[in-house]
Formats: sequence, C-alpha cells, structure tokens
Amino acid sequence: MRDRVSITELTPLLFLERSADVFGDKPAIRYKDGSITYAEMKAHVNRLGRALQAAGVRPGDRVAYLMPNLPEMLIGHFGVPLVHAILVAINTRLSGTEIAYILDHSGASILFVDSALFPTVEPHLGDRPNLERVIVVPDPHSGAPEVAGHTPYEEFLAAGTDEPLPFRVDDEERIISINYTSGTTGRPKGVMYTHRGAHLNALAELLHSRHTPDSVYLWTLPMFHCNGWCTTWGLPAIGGTSVCLRAVDPGEIWRLIGSEGVTHLNAAPTVLISMVNDSGAAPFGRDFVVTTAGAPPSPTIIAQMAELGAETVHVYGLTETYGPYTVCEVRTEWSDKPDPERFGLIARQGVAYIGADPIRVVDQQMNDVPRDGATMGEVVMKGNNVMAGYYDDADATERAFSGGWFHSGDLGVWHPDGYIELRDRAKDIIISGGENISTIEVEQAVVSHPDVLEAAVVSMPHEKWGERPKAFVTVKSGSTVTPDDIVEHVRDLLARFKVPDTVEIVPELPKTSTGKIQKYVLRERLWSGDRRIN
Amino acid sequence: MRDRVSITELTPLLFLERSADVFGDKPAIRYKDGSITYAEMKAHVNRLGRALQAAGVRPGDRVAYLMPNLPEMLIGHFGVPLVHAILVAINTRLSGTEIAYILDHSGASILFVDSALFPTVEPHLGDRPNLERVIVVPDPHSGAPEVAGHTPYEEFLAAGTDEPLPFRVDDEERIISINYTSGTTGRPKGVMYTHRGAHLNALAELLHSRHTPDSVYLWTLPMFHCNGWCTTWGLPAIGGTSVCLRAVDPGEIWRLIGSEGVTHLNAAPTVLISMVNDSGAAPFGRDFVVTTAGAPPSPTIIAQMAELGAETVHVYGLTETYGPYTVCEVRTEWSDKPDPERFGLIARQGVAYIGADPIRVVDQQMNDVPRDGATMGEVVMKGNNVMAGYYDDADATERAFSGGWFHSGDLGVWHPDGYIELRDRAKDIIISGGENISTIEVEQAVVSHPDVLEAAVVSMPHEKWGERPKAFVTVKSGSTVTPDDIVEHVRDLLARFKVPDTVEIVPELPKTSTGKIQKYVLRERLWSGDRRIN
Repeated sequence: MRDRVSITELTPLLFLERSADVFGDKPAIRYKDGSITYAEMKAHVNRLGRALQAAGVRPGDRVAYLMPNLPEMLIGHFGVPLVHAILVAINTRLSGTEIAYILDHSGASILFVDSALFPTVEPHLGDRPNLERVIVVPDPHSGAPEVAGHTPYEEFLAAGTDEPLPFRVDDEERIISINYTSGTTGRPKGVMYTHRGAHLNALAELLHSRHTPDSVYLWTLPMFHCNGWCTTWGLPAIGGTSVCLRAVDPGEIWRLIGSEGVTHLNAAPTVLISMVNDSGAAPFGRDFVVTTAGAPPSPTIIAQMAELGAETVHVYGLTETYGPYTVCEVRTEWSDKPDPERFGLIARQGVAYIGADPIRVVDQQMNDVPRDGATMGEVVMKGNNVMAGYYDDADATERAFSGGWFHSGDLGVWHPDGYIELRDRAKDIIISGGENISTIEVEQAVVSHPDVLEAAVVSMPHEKWGERPKAFVTVKSGSTVTPDDIVEHVRDLLARFKVPDTVEIVPELPKTSTGKIQKYVLRERLWSGDRRIN
Repeated sequence: MRDRVSITELTPLLFLERSADVFGDKPAIRYKDGSITYAEMKAHVNRLGRALQAAGVRPGDRVAYLMPNLPEMLIGHFGVPLVHAILVAINTRLSGTEIAYILDHSGASILFVDSALFPTVEPHLGDRPNLERVIVVPDPHSGAPEVAGHTPYEEFLAAGTDEPLPFRVDDEERIISINYTSGTTGRPKGVMYTHRGAHLNALAELLHSRHTPDSVYLWTLPMFHCNGWCTTWGLPAIGGTSVCLRAVDPGEIWRLIGSEGVTHLNAAPTVLISMVNDSGAAPFGRDFVVTTAGAPPSPTIIAQMAELGAETVHVYGLTETYGPYTVCEVRTEWSDKPDPERFGLIARQGVAYIGADPIRVVDQQMNDVPRDGATMGEVVMKGNNVMAGYYDDADATERAFSGGWFHSGDLGVWHPDGYIELRDRAKDIIISGGENISTIEVEQAVVSHPDVLEAAVVSMPHEKWGERPKAFVTVKSGSTVTPDDIVEHVRDLLARFKVPDTVEIVPELPKTSTGKIQKYVLRERLWSGDRRIN
C-alpha cells in the first residue's frame, strides 16, 4: 500500500463511502415495497463484512453468490470486497453440476444462495471440498418455502458487528471478483477483475450512459453478468437509485418504469425486443437511456426504442473486458442521414471507452487490417478495461493474452471512420465455397423484414460449398409470412451467395440467461453426425 | 512501467489519442474564425512533441508557457507531456519579476510566450540561468507587433517531424505539470500534478459538470489556473469542442455563447456577476451549466443564473487539489424549500468529488470537529486529487502534509448533512473581542442587498475589540444606496457583533487574474503602520 497523502488505491469501496456521506438519506436500493437509504446500505455492507470476518473469511478468500438481482446481491458487491475477499457471482441459469464446478474451481468457502434457487444446488452441497458454509437468503416475493439445515442470512449477519471497517484496499490491483464465462464449449473460465479496473470501468459506464445523481436504474441486466457491467459499483458512485428485479418480465418492466420513475436500464437486444412487443409498451415520457449489448441491436429495435423516446447507447464487450469495452458514439452529423443508413451506423460496435486503450482489428500476424469496412480480422483489446487473467489457469491466460493483447475471439471489420463492426464470433462465421459469410450481416437483413421478430443464422453442411447459411426466425404473432417471403426480402439486400438457402420459422430461439441466442444449439441440430469441431 | 495486458498507466494523453480516433473530423478547438479538428489537434501535438525533442527537451525537463487561452496553449497541455516533460503554465497577470522567479525556480529550459505578453518578460530574459530558448507565439487578433530576435512558433514546429510518438507514459505518477500558487504572501510555490491525478480529476470534472460529447465549452477560466481545473484534459476526453477566448469580457462572452452554441463554462463568481450585469445578458435557450469556484457564489448570483436558465454547479478547491475537490451536490428535496434557504444550501462548498477521499474539517489536534454547522475547523484533504507535493521545496511539502493530510488553510464548518461550508481563509478570519467572525458570512449578508454588486469584508484595527469588520462594496450603476442603508440591511440578518462598523462604497475591488478579491490589499490599507502579521 502506497501510504502517501497524494495516492489512494482505486477501489469501488470509495464510491459507497462517498454516497453514504453525501446521499445518506436517499434511497439507494428499492425492491417491491421496500427501500434502503445509502446510509443503511453502507451499514449493511459493513455488518456483512464483519460477519464474513467472524466466519473466518480472510483477504483473498472466495465468497460465492447465487442470487437474482435482489438488494442482498448488490450489498454483496461491496461487503465481500470490503474485507478484501473475492466475489464470485454465479449465473443463476446454470445447472447444479455447473454451479458445483464453479464452487470447486473458485474454492469458495461460503455460498450465499437465494431460497428459490436453493433446490438447484441442494443435491450438490454434500461433497464440495472447500465449501464451509451455505447462507440462505430468503425473498418473501419468490414464493419459495423456507430452507432448513443452513444458516439464514439474518443469523449470519447477527454474528457480525457494527464496528466500522475502512472502505479502502491495500492494493488497487487486488482481485475484487471472479466471473465465470458461460463458455459454450469447454469448462467455464474464471475471469479476474481488479479493484482498479472495476473503479475505472464504473466511471466510464457513468459517462457513456450519461448517468447523473438523479438516475433511477432498473436492474434488467443480471448482476452476475460482469457484475452488471460494473454498474453494481457505478450507480452507487453517482448516487443514483437501484430498482431491483427478480426476473426479466416485460410487463413488470413497464410497470416499474412507470411507478418508480426509471431513467436508465441496460439490457440485451432480445430484452428490448420483448419490451417493445409487450402490450404495456408506452412512451417513456422522460429522458431515458437504454444501454444495450450482448448482440448487435438491429436497426429495427433502435428505431422502435427511439419512437418511444429512449436514446439507445450501443456498447460491446466480453466478460474478459469488465463488460463493455466499446461504445458506438453517435456523431451529430449522422442525424442528417436517412433512417436506414443512420441506424446502420449506430448498430456498429464503435470505438473504445473513455480511458480504455484503442481497440484494434488484426490479422493473424497481429497487424492492423485495413480500415476499409470489408477486411475481416480479430478484435483485440488491452489496458485497464481488460481482466487480470483467468483464475488458476495460466495456460488459458497466456493463450488469451498472446502477443500482448487480449484476443476476443470476435471477428469484425474496421471502418474508415475508426469504428469497428462485428461480423461474427470466430466460431460462428460461415465459410461457403471459400467465401466468408458474416452471420450477423445476414441476420440484420432478415430482421429488417417487418414481420420478423428475431433471427439466428448458422451454417449448415453442404456437399458442394462446404457450408451454406440457414436462418431460424421467430415472427410476430398473427403474421402469415412464409419462408419464401423472407428469402425474397433478403435477396434485395444481400449478395446472392449470402442469401440463406433455407429459412425456418420456429416458435422460439434458444437463449442464454443474458438473452444471447445460443447459435451452437441450432448448429448442433444441423451438424449432428458431422465431424465439425467448434 | 508495468508492461501488462491489463494495465495501462493513467494519463490524459490517452484521452486525445481516443478523440482523434473517434472524433477525428470534429472541431476540437475554435478561436475567432479558425477551427481545428481532433485529428489536426493530435497531429499538431505530435509535431510539437517532436520539435521539443529536436530542441533537446528530455523527460522531466520543464517547459514554460505564458499565454492567454489560445489554441496553442491547449496544444501545449498535451505536447509537453507527450515527451514526458513538465508543463509550467504561468499566470499571465504576473509582473516580469514574478515570472522570472518562476522561470528560475522551475528551471524551465524553454518558454513559449504570446507576442502580446512578450514585452512583460523581455527585460528579464537576459540573465535567466536555465532558459535556453524563447518561442514567440503570434496571435493576429492581439494587435501586438511582431517580435524579432526569438524563434517564431512556426519555425520551432518546423524543426519537428510527423513521426508518431506513443500517447503513453512510462509511469502514471510522473509529473505532468507544475502550477505556481499566486501566494499573496511569500514566494509562489510550485504545485506538482501527476499524470494519474490529472486523468482521474479530468473524469470527475466531466461527471460533475455533466459534460457530453456535445459539450461546447467556453474558455472563461484561465488554462494557467490549475490547468483549467484539468478541463484542458477533460474536454478532449469527452470529445467536446473548446472555444478559446483571449480575455474575459462579458460582451464577448455573450456574443460567443450565441454564435458558438456554448453549453458550458467555468468561472469565478465575479465573472458571473459581470455577465448578468452586462447589457448582452439573455436567456441561454439551451441546457447550460456554469461551474463556479474561487469564492462562494452568493445566493443572489445563483438565482440570477437560474433565471437565465443555467444550472450552477458550485465547486471548491485549491491549486494543490488540481482545482476543485468538492462539489455542492444539489439534493432533489431542496427544490421544495423557499428560495433563500435553497440558495443558501447551494452556496455551501459541499462534499468530496467522485473518486476523491472524503473531505474533513478538523481541529488543531486533527480530530473531526462536530457536524453542527457552527464549530469552525481547518479543511483537510487527501488522495488522488491532492498534489504530489511542492516542486523543490521539501519543507513546505512536509508542512502542508503534516499529519498525513493536506492542509488547505481554509476554515469552515461541517453541517449535519455532511456538507462543508467555508467560513474563511485562515488569514482572513476576524477575531473581535475573542469571537470569530467569518468574513464570508458577513459578505453574503451585504451582497443580499439588491443594490450591491460585490463586497469584501476585512478586519480593521480596533482599540477595544482588537479587530472589527469593515466592508468594501461596489454598487450597481445608478444606485443611490448609502453605507448606512447597507448597515441597516445587514443588521436584520446578522448577530450584532458581526455587523460591519463601517461600509465603504468603492468604484472597484482589487482582484487576482482569476477574479478572486485580494483582501490582503484592502487589509494593508487599513493596517499600514500596524504590526499584524498575515
């Protein structure tokens, strides 16, 4: 620790300390009919820290949380780092086996679990070598029965004290959290965030989503997902109010937007699509910012959000980059362009965040690809918005950091204006007769059909061309559109070789818990029996 | 240098690199009928860096600037740090002798000087031991004649090249600038800023003044003053446009607000007062933020600014704290309070900036004073928004940092809501019959008289009480108000012992270049012949 007048180690802990001072009597977190102030939040965080110490948690220990977006989950984002322990927030959609793997790999000694999620992990609690305590957090609104045989949250807290802990860290490069990748193939990897990185990314989020102390933020984005893109730390920094949400439900989202005076939310495009198609959809009636990532938002959804009065901030990143790394900064002069062109510009992933190193698109020799909007390369990043590495996995870290840059695995192009645009995940790209086909480009063409809700384009095996694109689509209720209509529509927009051979209308698309479409599930259907490795 | 994928040393250089990428063709700086884009700004900065290298400037060398708020001055804020040299931006109102002292103490090897300011320093250029080169920067709008015998700016640049320099620093704790205090007594001291501190403070300024990429910022605040509160680095970070201004003139300010679409400015309250009393004053007609410091803004000026449609952000700090350290965060619930109370709340100095350590008010044993809004103590600060120390003055640094905190020399009270309020500079406080009288409190009462423009209250010698307050005031043109009227007005507002014995109406008050009233000048008039040490 640099004990100097002019250096304080960067940490999100500073943020809550400040807001408890400045906004002590202001609502920090609201959930259903409950509300706690910033002073109460800080006191709760302090008590949790003392209770963790009483339970034997030492600096560097891992503490796991398996919870929806509830107040206790946000409290955990400060209480665990307060005692210099490491927060492991686990994806609530995982199976018991997957959760058990993460508990073992992280070596978490304590697990906090929502009572409604408890049955998922219960069968796996018997033989976890490191796990010492399971703390059950009740939520009367979940309808879940009481859990016996484990420590209730209140009892755990009761073992703590109110003796103040310093909201400081001894080294800003200390690990604050480990977030496990959802890894569609292979074992999930534990992405390590530092106090410094979390502090800096949180500030950048505030600037790019234009937060103010008047922000009322609705928790549609899971807190377990990149720690809610560091907004778990950012919102308490600016002194806004968090509105908790147990499950993403468009009707409930609209109800809360109205009753709570919500001004901001972060969500994947699929959540936005479900919102605009909900019967409760209505103009926001106040300045409203929707920050979206997880997949490129279609021009259609950007336009629909604009019609309701929301500004869409399009960002892009990965678990390995603290969530967002780029933002599509909207240039004033774009407003003069016709809608389709303008929305196309906004749908690009854009440029590096303030404070982040410039993003690059490189070829296999790590040379920049030309800024021609056509040459594809891999997107690589570097600097304070990049993880410290994978926990207990030096080999994977070395591979990911080869050449001194973090390799995203995403393929994109670089436009003459410096903005990047993703074309595909490296594993999603379709190679047809030697030509690359960007599945994202084909999807954008498909969803521009007015009757289409969502689309996923994947490769299917083809005897002559090796691979050919196939589109899975969902359509608006009551629509009578046919696959041929959609192919016809796309034919006007894309080069001949990019037009899908087949369009299949399906009732729904497989998705991850954060709303990403799982293309690998669709691909497996088409390739089962084939030897393609992905 | 920590050469790792996940660490980039913090530096404002990153900001310009990003904006040149993102906003390459957008106006970065406008002055009169000229304009340069962010790409051009970066190219100019790079060339300046190369020219400095060609002139023999090495990392750690000091490079001085004596210039008004012109484009070349903003360029210097990046070009000098680009080669890891240290910027010494000198107050343009100083005398030639004072400037010579700063040149000698900093050991600057190069001086960039505006052609109109050249005559001030010319007599002192002969015998400066460290100064090797003087570069004269012409400004056709200044009306100053050409200067012979020294290198013109263009010729200096011509010795550089366009070979790209990395916009990085090898150590974020490297010194980026030295800002000399205006020190009303004693020699000016050189306050050292680091790249890290400048980076973090610049981001905090953006958040608290609510800047966006659409910001058009008018340079009413001198860039030599705490590097324009780090806005020299912050505005290029967010990608806003800087509008330069050679001299503060209210008519010109209003003209530029109209013609350039200005959205933000920073200025001392005296500048705001001159603005609202100018014949060109008019409603802003767009979202407008005025950030003010240098003296507590009176409720009157806050109200007048609000009437014109501007939000006033009140901040407070010192040269030693990178400019602002606190902001008076305006609480929503204040809007329900009657105007005088509300404006009184806003006129307090407030709470620490986002990312800064909490501010304290302490007694002489460094214990917190009670948060009672009454007990006076010294304001102390600590952390990333505090200078690295005084250049080449270990003794002064040690004194200023005694007890592990930076001692501001400002006296204030701590309110129950955690907000601090200045009562005085330690040297300005009036001690009358053993009672402390806050000159600021008396001034606020005096300026609440509708005919009063500005007031300065200082101590005058008194046989019985030791000291008594005296007010110097300026009044609105055409006013027939008398000193007795003002005393009568104040009598209703203050305790009897705080009411000034004398009010003197004067044509103008002595001020520093940044608009601070020089109370010591007034005091000297009253105390000449006395032995008081201040």
